[in-house]
Amino acid sequence: MSRTVYVNGEYLPEEDAKISIFDRGFLMADGVYEVTSVLGGKLLDFDGHSARLERSLKELDMAAPATGDELLAIHRELVARNDIVDGMIYLQVTRGSAGDRDFAFPDPAKTPSSLVLFTQSKPGLANNPAAKTGLKIITIDDIRWGRRDIKTVQLLYPSMGKMMAKKAGVDDAWMVEDGFVTEGTSNNAYIVKGNTIITRALSNDILHGITRAAVLRFAREAQMEVVERSFTVDEAKAADEAFITSASAFVMPVVEIDGAPIGTGTPGHVATRLREIYLDESLKTAI
Amino acid sequence: MSRTVYVNGEYLPEEDAKISIFDRGFLMADGVYEVTSVLGGKLLDFDGHSARLERSLKELDMAAPATGDELLAIHRELVARNDIVDGMIYLQVTRGSAGDRDFAFPDPAKTPSSLVLFTQSKPGLANNPAAKTGLKIITIDDIRWGRRDIKTVQLLYPSMGKMMAKKAGVDDAWMVEDGFVTEGTSNNAYIVKGNTIITRALSNDILHGITRAAVLRFAREAQMEVVERSFTVDEAKAADEAFITSASAFVMPVVEIDGAPIGTGTPGHVATRLREIYLDESLKTAI
Repeated sequence: MSRTVYVNGEYLPEEDAKISIFDRGFLMADGVYEVTSVLGGKLLDFDGHSARLERSLKELDMAAPATGDELLAIHRELVARNDIVDGMIYLQVTRGSAGDRDFAFPDPAKTPSSLVLFTQSKPGLANNPAAKTGLKIITIDDIRWGRRDIKTVQLLYPSMGKMMAKKAGVDDAWMVEDGFVTEGTSNNAYIVKGNTIITRALSNDILHGITRAAVLRFAREAQMEVVERSFTVDEAKAADEAFITSASAFVMPVVEIDGAPIGTGTPGHVATRLREIYLDESLKTAI
Repeated sequence: MSRTVYVNGEYLPEEDAKISIFDRGFLMADGVYEVTSVLGGKLLDFDGHSARLERSLKELDMAAPATGDELLAIHRELVARNDIVDGMIYLQVTRGSAGDRDFAFPDPAKTPSSLVLFTQSKPGLANNPAAKTGLKIITIDDIRWGRRDIKTVQLLYPSMGKMMAKKAGVDDAWMVEDGFVTEGTSNNAYIVKGNTIITRALSNDILHGITRAAVLRFAREAQMEVVERSFTVDEAKAADEAFITSASAFVMPVVEIDGAPIGTGTPGHVATRLREIYLDESLKTAI
C-alpha cells in the first residue's frame, strides 16, 4: 500500500510527493532534518528532536516552516494515516525554492522554507536482533565539513562510509579525525572501560544526539560513571565494551572494530543494560 | 516567459519541473553538477565539463545518466527552446530515487540516476561591468569536506560564505585552510607577483576548474610564467594583482582582500589580458 507523505501543507500518496528542482535542498544541500522513532504508535523524545531542529534552523538563519505544535500534529497525522506502530518519522526542512539557482539565500519573506515528512514502518523496531549479536564496524577517516553539530542533509560522506562498511563485510563505520573517533556514520560512539562510559564531548565536531543526551542522563541516574572526552581507535579496541546510540537504533552494542573483538566479542553488560533503561524510560514519556 | 527545463527525459515548463522527495539529491546531497557557459548561442568548453562530470560520477560510483553526445543534444535543445544567446546551462546528476530513504546506495540497475538541466539567461554575460571595476572579497575559514575535487551539490558552506561576503558589503569570499587560500566560494583563486601567476596546485582540496585549466594553458602559451603552489592571505595582500576564474565569471579581477587594496586597487594588466585571451580563445572552440 502506498504511504501518505506530507509535502508543504499537503498529504499526498508517496508517488505524487515531489518538490521543485529549484528547491535549495536539491540544488545546494541547504536543508536540515530530524528522525523521530515511533514505538507502539507513540513518538519518542519529540521535544528533544523539536528543540534540535529549532537549533539547526537558527544556526543556518533558516525560517521555521511551522510551530512545534503544528509539527507534532503532522507527525501524529502521519502515524495515524499510515497505521505506524513501530518505525520512524523523517522530517526535512529546506530553504525552499526561489524559482532559480543562486548561492545567496533568498528573502524568507518571499521564499518560505519547504517542509517534507514521511514515515518508515519498522515493525518490531525495539526488538532488532542485532542488539543480541552486536555490530561489527570499521574505522574510516572523517572528512566531513566542520559543522557536524548542525543536522544538515549533507550526507554523502556518511553514505559513502556505509558503503565502505558494506564492502568490508561489516555493519557500519566509525569516523576518525586527528587520531580520535568522532562518531558513527549516523550515530554517536561510546566505549566502556571498567565502570566508566566514555564518549566524545559535544562540539562542532559531532552531532548533538538526542538519544545520546537521554542515554547519558539515564546512565548518570543509574549511578554509572560518564566521562565526556575523545578516545582513540586503539583505546576503543582495548575497551571492555563499545556501543552506539541513535534515534532509531537506540543503544546498540559494537562487538568488533577493524577486525578486533571488543571485550569478549559479545554485547556487553553496560550497553545491554543501557538499552533496556533507554527503551523503558523513553516509552514512559513517549507522546 | 516560462523556461523549458529538462527532467529525466522530459522537457517541461519550469513550474512543472519536479523530482521525487525520495531523490537522493534532495535527501542526502548525493549528486554532482556542472555549469556550462553559453556565449552567442554556443557552449564554452563543453568537452571539459563533460570530462569533469564523468570524473565526478566515477569518484562516487554513480551511473552516468546519458552519453556525452546525448548530454550535448540536451544542452543544445535547451539553448534553442529558451532562445539563450548568453547565459549558463546548469546540469545535475543524482543517484536517483529508490522510493525510500537509506544511506546505502541503491542498485543502479534498478534505480537510474536522475538528470536535471536548466538554462539561466544572462544577456551580455561576457561584458560584465565588474570586470572593469574588480571584485572586493573577504577571507573566511574553509570548513568544507575533504573531497572538493568532486563537484557535489554540497554547497551549503559556499552559500554561507556568499552571505558572509554580502554582510561584509563585498562581492565574494576566499576560503583559507591551514593558513593557505584554497579557493573562492565558486571559483579558483590566483595572485600575480611580478610576471608570475600563482595558483594552488590541484588536489582533493580544490575544484579542478575547467576555466582554470584553460586559463593556465592560454597563459603558458602567451609566455606568462605559471607556478602552481599554495599562497597565504598575507602573500595575496602583498601581490601585484589577484583574480578568480570560473565557468560563468571567466577571468575576474580581485581588487581588495579583507579591506586591503591589491596592487593599485584596480584591475591588473595580467587579469585583464587573460580575460581577453580566454574569451577570444574559448569562443573559437565554442560549439
